[in-house]
Amino acid sequence: MQQLSIDVALVHHPVVNKNGETIGSAITNLDLHDIARACRTFGVSNYWVITPFSEQKVFAETIVSHWLEGYGATANPDRGNALSLVRVCDNLDEVLASILDKWGEDLLVLTTCAKPQDNTLGYSEVRQKIQDGAKVLLVFGTAWGLAPEVMDQASATLPPINGAGDYNHLSVRSAVSIVLDRLLGRPIE
Amino acid sequence: MQQLSIDVALVHHPVVNKNGETIGSAITNLDLHDIARACRTFGVSNYWVITPFSEQKVFAETIVSHWLEGYGATANPDRGNALSLVRVCDNLDEVLASILDKWGEDLLVLTTCAKPQDNTLGYSEVRQKIQDGAKVLLVFGTAWGLAPEVMDQASATLPPINGAGDYNHLSVRSAVSIVLDRLLGRPIE
Repeated sequence: MQQLSIDVALVHHPVVNKNGETIGSAITNLDLHDIARACRTFGVSNYWVITPFSEQKVFAETIVSHWLEGYGATANPDRGNALSLVRVCDNLDEVLASILDKWGEDLLVLTTCAKPQDNTLGYSEVRQKIQDGAKVLLVFGTAWGLAPEVMDQASATLPPINGAGDYNHLSVRSAVSIVLDRLLGRPIE
Repeated sequence: MQQLSIDVALVHHPVVNKNGETIGSAITNLDLHDIARACRTFGVSNYWVITPFSEQKVFAETIVSHWLEGYGATANPDRGNALSLVRVCDNLDEVLASILDKWGEDLLVLTTCAKPQDNTLGYSEVRQKIQDGAKVLLVFGTAWGLAPEVMDQASATLPPINGAGDYNHLSVRSAVSIVLDRLLGRPIE
């Protein structure tokens, strides 16, 4: 099994609401579970949960510790296996500093957006870079998506996930799952 | 835009628990939302939510009507657009009878399972059949997966979703999203 250097970040602040205003969103239990399980399945090293709100950090850490050390650890150890990837932190700069520490420089920071951006890098190109050993941080937004100042920190942006028509309101849980499969899934039988 | 004939069913009974015993599971709010949004994105016609429990049916219909007719309809009409695909019904036979009514015979019933099965039909083969106009019902299980009597009703089973290693405990929301993208997503840029 190839050792990958891929991390995922889920941003709760700064993100935008439906009017384009910068807000902070709430952490949800299933964002922790579903995305951690997808990360573990596809070989992601760390799943960064970004929020500056201290009550929200306690909430996330309480959920994670239930599955790592509490009753959940014996009831369903597969969950702890996935949730052990979670790292709660304040902001993207903190994540970037931690990754610099563990992997060194040359990190590809890839943001995601439901609308096409000017700095697009396609899935097959990123997949190839990963196979060639690239270190990648995939950044996803909650609410109505990442705030402009986060988009500005990216090396590039992945294309929107298109289906049959114009509807592209996938949940972030679905979007993360599909992006990980496109970039890291085994060739489709 | 090609008119597809693809339905999705999410089974809450009969499914199995971690000991392989047949049980009924509870409907969850996010299974309705996330899977409906993925279905709408990828051009699925109907999202069948299968449960024989009358309180559970009321629960599902209350959520759907909030987004179709209640406050949700004005607050976020994109959700109603997705949730309008939901059809709540008792069992798989009822779903099959309804589909027979709308599409006629020659339905490909594809079950899904985290473990490899003897009757596997690969993603690229199914994708081709869909492009050639096949009518398909994709059947997903909650809890620890579909009960044997549901697996026995399938024309074939899709391969498990494999990632980097042996961990394959994706949420059903992630699994549905990835399967729809593999079968119906536009070619990856």
